[in-house]
Amino acid sequence: MSNPASLREVARVRVIYGDTDQMGMVYYGNYLRYFEIARTEFLRQAGATYRAFSEASGHKLPVVEACVRYRQSARYDDEMALFAAIAKLGGASARFEYEIRRLPDGALLVDGHTLHACIDAAGKVSRIPRSLRDALSATAAPPPPAPAPGR
Amino acid sequence: MSNPASLREVARVRVIYGDTDQMGMVYYGNYLRYFEIARTEFLRQAGATYRAFSEASGHKLPVVEACVRYRQSARYDDEMALFAAIAKLGGASARFEYEIRRLPDGALLVDGHTLHACIDAAGKVSRIPRSLRDALSATAAPPPPAPAPGR
Amino acid sequence: MSNPASLREVARVRVIYGDTDQMGMVYYGNYLRYFEIARTEFLRQAGATYRAFSEASGHKLPVVEACVRYRQSARYDDEMALFAAIAKLGGASARFEYEIRRLPDGALLVDGHTLHACIDAAGKVSRIPRSLRDALSATAAPPPPAPAPGR
Amino acid sequence: MSNPASLREVARVRVIYGDTDQMGMVYYGNYLRYFEIARTEFLRQAGATYRAFSEASGHKLPVVEACVRYRQSARYDDEMALFAAIAKLGGASARFEYEIRRLPDGALLVDGHTLHACIDAAGKVSRIPRSLRDALSATAAPPPPAPAPGR
Repeated sequence: MSNPASLREVARVRVIYGDTDQMGMVYYGNYLRYFEIARTEFLRQAGATYRAFSEASGHKLPVVEACVRYRQSARYDDEMALFAAIAKLGGASARFEYEIRRLPDGALLVDGHTLHACIDAAGKVSRIPRSLRDALSATAAPPPPAPAPGR
Repeated sequence: MSNPASLREVARVRVIYGDTDQMGMVYYGNYLRYFEIARTEFLRQAGATYRAFSEASGHKLPVVEACVRYRQSARYDDEMALFAAIAKLGGASARFEYEIRRLPDGALLVDGHTLHACIDAAGKVSRIPRSLRDALSATAAPPPPAPAPGR
Repeated sequence: MSNPASLREVARVRVIYGDTDQMGMVYYGNYLRYFEIARTEFLRQAGATYRAFSEASGHKLPVVEACVRYRQSARYDDEMALFAAIAKLGGASARFEYEIRRLPDGALLVDGHTLHACIDAAGKVSRIPRSLRDALSATAAPPPPAPAPGR
Repeated sequence: MSNPASLREVARVRVIYGDTDQMGMVYYGNYLRYFEIARTEFLRQAGATYRAFSEASGHKLPVVEACVRYRQSARYDDEMALFAAIAKLGGASARFEYEIRRLPDGALLVDGHTLHACIDAAGKVSRIPRSLRDALSATAAPPPPAPAPGR
């Protein structure tokens, strides 16, 4: 990652049958579910649950772009560590980056990003409210000195 | 089926990778998606789209019970015929029955039912509105003389 | 539950956007994913992971019937406790029962069961191998004296 | 699209509840399911079903990258037209491009691409077999004179 944001481990997920396809691997679309889990837990750990944020302010952060690069396959019953970071925080947009690593060996399975617009309750593009911006900015601060687990 | 309702073919669906699991068969939970497609198309053919119904009246028909019996496995790229019928129409409830058959041989893959309550816009149990009741009653009328395709 | 089997809490799951539908509740088919998580973790805690079991013996436990009763709705970001039990252990079949409860109040959201056949590597119905039978029988033993969490 | 490949309509799909999330729109990960449907039907219309291809040759085309841009939201019960094209055909890779348009107005909802490697039965990167290459090359031929429906 050339990006200055420091990815942090935010959740662990175990692959179920319902996530796999007949190649015995996680279906490619399901990684976007894992990205959502990572994003949600990232926000929760920043002190800003998406549910509270969207209910309080009426704002939402719909995805306008998502990209996934598939490096290695996750298989049935694998446990995975989900990493996320805020890579860029614009006035009315935010970019998250992700890595998904297999446990216990830490092998990189997937990385990617999502780009989000901020819209208000009327559906108009809107500045990210200060409360969320402050929470997110705090997470983009200097990286922790120790390596994240599983990397 | 001992039930007097006549199942009719209402849609065809082809199995994609995203529907299968690592046994190479459709994941067991995904048949409830096919039941929804069958139910929706059944209503559409009865002249009552669920979208128009719920938007116009504010009523909804949430599922209160669903059962599926798995007879044979649908596999990747199989084309399936979805059959549905109204098995019972109560004052504030409706029961749909389903069969899913493989094409072109008509082999029975899955059958089952869903039971629905009618609730109004406030979330209270409510009588099924007359417009929907009339449309559904019409479908429960005498069965067509010819056997349904694929049976 | 009139069943003698004692349900035990085996996993916790938080509802993501990808699990909900436009009624703002978990899509009815997705509870079968939660049942799978519950079943898998139940087996793991019994000392018999399904992955190891199926790889070692070539046997599988495909679902032949699944029923779900929907009591209350799980909503976005709700945390849920998943409970499972072996309700019946036949020669070549097993029946699991499930409850899904909302945290922290323990409200019952969903209950249901799945019935499984045991098949061997050739796809023939087969007796459940002794190693799995022993692990499962142990779990059907006398219930723990203290109430399970969240009930 | 600056790309010379001509997108063609290959399938139509109607949005079900199971595809939506609590914003009332199609969940962002589900568009990768639609991309798969588009890709599969594109191949079928080129005379090369993916199932036959992978069973005959043992080759597969796993996704190594997927990107989606979300322009407008598809909603419950919307009917959508799926468009696909082969944008690039390398020795051991293929790039598909996609557009998803709402019917009947043809509004662009989503576009994106997937990049695929060709691997043989042993999982090694391999040249795309001639039979598939010929079928795909034919589809990249001169565009049809009339505009595709819905554009």
